[in-house]
Amino acid sequence: MDYPSKLIENAVDEIAKLPGIGKKTALRLALHLLKQEKQDVKELSNALVNLRENTRYCNSCFNISDGDTCDICASHKRDSGVICVVEDTRDVMAIENTSQFFGLYHVLGGVIMPIEGIGPTDLNITPLITRVANSNGEVKEIILALPATMEGDTTAFYITKKLKELGVKVTSIARGVPVGGELEYTDEITLGRSIMNRQ
Amino acid sequence: MDYPSKLIENAVDEIAKLPGIGKKTALRLALHLLKQEKQDVKELSNALVNLRENTRYCNSCFNISDGDTCDICASHKRDSGVICVVEDTRDVMAIENTSQFFGLYHVLGGVIMPIEGIGPTDLNITPLITRVANSNGEVKEIILALPATMEGDTTAFYITKKLKELGVKVTSIARGVPVGGELEYTDEITLGRSIMNRQ
Repeated sequence: MDYPSKLIENAVDEIAKLPGIGKKTALRLALHLLKQEKQDVKELSNALVNLRENTRYCNSCFNISDGDTCDICASHKRDSGVICVVEDTRDVMAIENTSQFFGLYHVLGGVIMPIEGIGPTDLNITPLITRVANSNGEVKEIILALPATMEGDTTAFYITKKLKELGVKVTSIARGVPVGGELEYTDEITLGRSIMNRQ
Repeated sequence: MDYPSKLIENAVDEIAKLPGIGKKTALRLALHLLKQEKQDVKELSNALVNLRENTRYCNSCFNISDGDTCDICASHKRDSGVICVVEDTRDVMAIENTSQFFGLYHVLGGVIMPIEGIGPTDLNITPLITRVANSNGEVKEIILALPATMEGDTTAFYITKKLKELGVKVTSIARGVPVGGELEYTDEITLGRSIMNRQ
């Protein structure tokens, strides 16, 4: 595409680097920004730079945090004997929204993806092992809440193997037909497994 | 939603102000930016501010431009006797991509939308009239390439009325069944008009 100015071409190129945003959407967004107040565009721009420069991670669970320890890890109301292992912050937010879990979290920051060059050492797996080992038996159970994909399963398998040596109980969140889901429209693997793993 | 930190909440709020981007997508984008290099986030942020602060518009056609006059208006190869009136820059780019138009453009910067409070004076309509009037008869034809919506039609009607007084020829781009379109799936209004306006 031929852009009418270098500035818009540059902005479109930068915006289109974001995941799920193509050149057409990027152009739409750039033209939208051109119509906004200068102050509003500055605020957006500052929010992005601030996010990247100043975001901190909890020393214990590696969730995004305003301080050294996140609110969940710092809370006395949470059960420190159960740790739920998740891929990223969004999963913590999703589980917190259910109000069904009262333990602590451990954010891996991804899952093992050899194709993308992401191995176990690129994730917060070693800190998890250390965290469990250093708890002197306080951590009784690790719940793996990883994506139900090949990569998620690989990661779960790897962590399970590492944790087995420490003698801690390792469980996984239940997989099956979602509540409200019609059997007819459930994929065969999920349905097959939900019969195998009947309760 | 409860965000794990103020910084991410602020970034999500700012990103979600963009059109077509909700809080969930904004959070996905914010988490993506957190994983990028600081320099890359700065480049995105600078591109947005630069776009808003330094973008200039062509004095003649009001298209986005690097200088006072855009490349199209400055070109001697273009026919200055025909002006194509469009809503925004994207339309200029779309028409340029066809390589079927060799005249000049006039970018209105929107269409008349009383509900949104956008009247004729908020658009570059007066400069269009002045441009035609000052051309001393050089401009022979105005092609209206506005959206086929109520607002586009209203704007086209308004401009036509204004231009009639100057005695310039006003045409509209053809509406009808798109090339490759099946009659069966064409909406009734388009199909009805394409029969009425048969060539």
